[in-house]
Amino acid sequence: MSANIFGERLKVISFGESHGLAYGVVIDGLPAQIKVNLDLLEKNLARRKPGQGDHTTSRDEKDQYEILSGVFEGKTLGTPLAVLVRNTDQRSSDYLEIQNNPRIGHADDVWKNKFGHADYRGGGRSSGRETLCRVIGGSFAQMLFQSQQLKTSVVAGATQIGPHKLDAAQELPENIKKFLALAKTEGESYGGIVQCRIQNPPVNLGQPVFHKLKSDLASAMLGLGAVEGFEFGAGFSAAAMKGTEFHSAADSTNYGGIRGGISTGEDIIFNVAFKPTSSIKDVAKVGRHDPCIVPRALPVVEAMTWLVLADHLLWSRTDRV
Amino acid sequence: MSANIFGERLKVISFGESHGLAYGVVIDGLPAQIKVNLDLLEKNLARRKPGQGDHTTSRDEKDQYEILSGVFEGKTLGTPLAVLVRNTDQRSSDYLEIQNNPRIGHADDVWKNKFGHADYRGGGRSSGRETLCRVIGGSFAQMLFQSQQLKTSVVAGATQIGPHKLDAAQELPENIKKFLALAKTEGESYGGIVQCRIQNPPVNLGQPVFHKLKSDLASAMLGLGAVEGFEFGAGFSAAAMKGTEFHSAADSTNYGGIRGGISTGEDIIFNVAFKPTSSIKDVAKVGRHDPCIVPRALPVVEAMTWLVLADHLLWSRTDRV
Amino acid sequence: MSANIFGERLKVISFGESHGLAYGVVIDGLPAQIKVNLDLLEKNLARRKPGQGDHTTSRDEKDQYEILSGVFEGKTLGTPLAVLVRNTDQRSSDYLEIQNNPRIGHADDVWKNKFGHADYRGGGRSSGRETLCRVIGGSFAQMLFQSQQLKTSVVAGATQIGPHKLDAAQELPENIKKFLALAKTEGESYGGIVQCRIQNPPVNLGQPVFHKLKSDLASAMLGLGAVEGFEFGAGFSAAAMKGTEFHSAADSTNYGGIRGGISTGEDIIFNVAFKPTSSIKDVAKVGRHDPCIVPRALPVVEAMTWLVLADHLLWSRTDRV
Amino acid sequence: MSANIFGERLKVISFGESHGLAYGVVIDGLPAQIKVNLDLLEKNLARRKPGQGDHTTSRDEKDQYEILSGVFEGKTLGTPLAVLVRNTDQRSSDYLEIQNNPRIGHADDVWKNKFGHADYRGGGRSSGRETLCRVIGGSFAQMLFQSQQLKTSVVAGATQIGPHKLDAAQELPENIKKFLALAKTEGESYGGIVQCRIQNPPVNLGQPVFHKLKSDLASAMLGLGAVEGFEFGAGFSAAAMKGTEFHSAADSTNYGGIRGGISTGEDIIFNVAFKPTSSIKDVAKVGRHDPCIVPRALPVVEAMTWLVLADHLLWSRTDRV
Repeated sequence: MSANIFGERLKVISFGESHGLAYGVVIDGLPAQIKVNLDLLEKNLARRKPGQGDHTTSRDEKDQYEILSGVFEGKTLGTPLAVLVRNTDQRSSDYLEIQNNPRIGHADDVWKNKFGHADYRGGGRSSGRETLCRVIGGSFAQMLFQSQQLKTSVVAGATQIGPHKLDAAQELPENIKKFLALAKTEGESYGGIVQCRIQNPPVNLGQPVFHKLKSDLASAMLGLGAVEGFEFGAGFSAAAMKGTEFHSAADSTNYGGIRGGISTGEDIIFNVAFKPTSSIKDVAKVGRHDPCIVPRALPVVEAMTWLVLADHLLWSRTDRV
Repeated sequence: MSANIFGERLKVISFGESHGLAYGVVIDGLPAQIKVNLDLLEKNLARRKPGQGDHTTSRDEKDQYEILSGVFEGKTLGTPLAVLVRNTDQRSSDYLEIQNNPRIGHADDVWKNKFGHADYRGGGRSSGRETLCRVIGGSFAQMLFQSQQLKTSVVAGATQIGPHKLDAAQELPENIKKFLALAKTEGESYGGIVQCRIQNPPVNLGQPVFHKLKSDLASAMLGLGAVEGFEFGAGFSAAAMKGTEFHSAADSTNYGGIRGGISTGEDIIFNVAFKPTSSIKDVAKVGRHDPCIVPRALPVVEAMTWLVLADHLLWSRTDRV
Repeated sequence: MSANIFGERLKVISFGESHGLAYGVVIDGLPAQIKVNLDLLEKNLARRKPGQGDHTTSRDEKDQYEILSGVFEGKTLGTPLAVLVRNTDQRSSDYLEIQNNPRIGHADDVWKNKFGHADYRGGGRSSGRETLCRVIGGSFAQMLFQSQQLKTSVVAGATQIGPHKLDAAQELPENIKKFLALAKTEGESYGGIVQCRIQNPPVNLGQPVFHKLKSDLASAMLGLGAVEGFEFGAGFSAAAMKGTEFHSAADSTNYGGIRGGISTGEDIIFNVAFKPTSSIKDVAKVGRHDPCIVPRALPVVEAMTWLVLADHLLWSRTDRV
Repeated sequence: MSANIFGERLKVISFGESHGLAYGVVIDGLPAQIKVNLDLLEKNLARRKPGQGDHTTSRDEKDQYEILSGVFEGKTLGTPLAVLVRNTDQRSSDYLEIQNNPRIGHADDVWKNKFGHADYRGGGRSSGRETLCRVIGGSFAQMLFQSQQLKTSVVAGATQIGPHKLDAAQELPENIKKFLALAKTEGESYGGIVQCRIQNPPVNLGQPVFHKLKSDLASAMLGLGAVEGFEFGAGFSAAAMKGTEFHSAADSTNYGGIRGGISTGEDIIFNVAFKPTSSIKDVAKVGRHDPCIVPRALPVVEAMTWLVLADHLLWSRTDRV
């Protein structure tokens, strides 16, 4: 394995820096004959895109993707599928000042220390823009489920933004949009919690010991830059529960749809905690920064979930003779 | 990668079923010349062993390990290090009744469904006993740090057992021991929260995108059977914090010692949520079951942490020319 | 991947040193429900065992294997299958002299230089005895084919021993046995060529670019200590052939049953060149050394072939939706 | 691992089909701070390019590469390095006839059978054009050696083309160029043998059991489409040699610079057998086909060798404490 490769059976390779020429993703291990659904891909990319409302950054990113390989006449070939998205709005001149003023909460200095290089342009691989590689990868993973006519769905929603509790099934309400717009004018930022629900997951996904389904989901979520926590089923609240209550036969939701590391076929529900974005104070006011990453993170959480599910769906084909 | 192999540079292969002949672990990728510290290994195994007090199971497991390969004259050879622990107390007759009565909360039925086999002996690979493989692996990972004369320490402690909050730095207080002894007589079980602190971690551990240090720690923790949640730094509480508060220059603890996925050299602190053990009611009263897994889980959490750290320590050797 | 792990879908982990306590093998990724055929395993081990006649070493190795995990009631469980073979005849005292007299042609000094250790006992991981791990692994790979009711067979035979050409389909003729017995008395050794024929291979095995079937077979064969060459189909003789002759529609044997890296379903035939064993002169005369490794290598070549085939058989399950 | 990923520590991901939009390569695991030598890259690409003389195809391929990521101010960043080469001369109309007339010796039908798709455009991933990904990857591997100031060189030369023996150290002589030009007019093709010499290799490269240096070199060479054989050191001629001759202390060339799977620091020499190209008869006469692939294969053999060497150079950093 490798720093920029995700997955075992279905491998996603991500490349690109925020102020370089392009981002791209190569997907290896995708079976042949998947029907390519570009509408799905574009819908997912649009949801990740900034500039959709007051509550997100106004940066006008162009996510013009180009499928370079792996698809012919609307179906996957079984060869590596590569997708490219050029950076049209790099403005690295904007970032020259970062050179001497590393931004608090960003990883600029950490990376510089690790690799010893001189890339003062900021962000690099840790930019949120890298997540478009994941959305592209996850979309093709989702197409595998569609092509197998599985009824699985993955839906992420915000249950908390800063101090406000929300209903995960709803769109962002107006008062939250206003709350976030105000935060931006004040140079403030907020974290939040995303809840993701997998409905009708295939049964028997996950491997017993080191690639439990919960383990790979946790790895996928903590692989997102701003994530500081993961829980599924009863999660942290399980700590205080009595066993006779937790293991009540009438209610299996505490197990979160996963037992022994394997999906039971019941809905899988997990929560992901995001920290406040690191662009605050004067930096946040001018320009192109989200006061809260949660709204744009929803399609990314879904994409990573699809990647884990597809990986294990393929893996489960070798469980038995 | 594979279901029973953990790690990238340092690979731990675990084998054995709870009611089979033996458990074992093979460690591949361990550098040559590590000074083998058997006292450390035995101390760690003893901490994992049941039967240490009222609060843990009274099962008299013999953890007699045998190093089969990879060590010569007190040092590692650079060849795979294999360690075997035989099961001396299998009592599979005790488990015959499981055949027709799968235990609630256990994975017996899930595994049977996945693999289609007839192993009615219970537990199999999902048994807590498999964790001794991890303690052995983690102990050798720790020896790598010792041999490099690093000052890193990893200490896990309970911060919650059932409804009771605890000080992670303390041993289990008497009232908690009594609380757990009572639970056992009542056929009750409890979950808990373990806090793990990595002091003096090497700087620059972790890879930027898919093998962030936090991501691999989360994967390691959720790979433990009873774990339902992981958080580091401010964790889930980050969701409600203001960015100007979270990213306060005076206090970096919210970052949890990891930024951009990479260790900063500051202490790394994370929490792990355990669910109540699944042996409850009459099953819990008779025989050999823990009312709370947290006390015995501490050396396992530490071991998995050492494995992740050692993996990234080796990995970081190729960061630069 | 790792130095001591072979395969992608089906992984074989080998451990043990020639003068340590034991050799062992863990097989991970073996599907559940394979019917375990111990007769097959024992027959293969017996063929690898020395001491079968004048032409092989008289060392009385005991290959008493013990299946530690992964099998229940005659079938695989889908869990890692571990097999242990203890070294009963280590005689490391015999090897004390190696300490100051590294043997020519052996890797003693090379390993010592690489790992910097002091294992003067000779051989270590490069011993021919390590191949019993491969024979065990390959036998279980073969059982996968049996359990899927495939008619594939793998048969290796010697086509050359020293200067003598042989018929691969025949047992060693008497004159060759005498030739080898004489070599031993004279302190001489010889190399040879093994031809391996895969009959009725499944079609569509192999991956197009970096895991072509021919590429993985070559890797498997050159992973054997004494091997210096691999060729399939027309092999080295292809160099001098005319294209119009090589690509003759009437005869596809030049392709060796593999085109574009993928098995066509036709027989696959390849040759493996072995160098003369390195125990020569006085060392060869006294004690337990083969004058030619080829006879004992046959089951090892077959085993590695089965491992490659089984790996790709499992891999091919994800070729298509 | 994966069908389109090569290497363990240094991973090269190749994508693209011959008649698609582009080829590309992502290199993951390249240390930061490698000085990027574009002259070297371009020189290597030029050597692989067709249209250099009578003896190679006249196809006017444009190998305009674009480095998309991983490099900043002339040095590698430690992030994945992606390079794109667009296909400007696809002429898929030329290939429409292939749809109903699969070409003998090509893998068109094999791939179609495996993946079940309808890509009648020919070649796909098995095209020789994919080797430009390898030349790009290998060039960066070579830059790692340069940045570490190692004196290692890798030089491949033809020792046989069809029936003609050649001196590997020489350029193609005129009579061979004429021989190949004549072959083209006659619709004939030839195979050949490439000898590759690694001078001043680092000592201690290779891992003892399954990733011996010879094993990974064999895998790399047999991963090339037209290759049917690999041998190093004495190779197939070792079979007939006497041990007392082979293991002569005065001459270590029979070992080929590798013992016990590990480089000794002596020159490593290996041979690679190529079959005759499959474009013969009328197909070969019109258009853009090589009568012998050997001349263009030289930089590809070198590139794959550099990739193996760089992989093991990085790997060897974790051999010892």
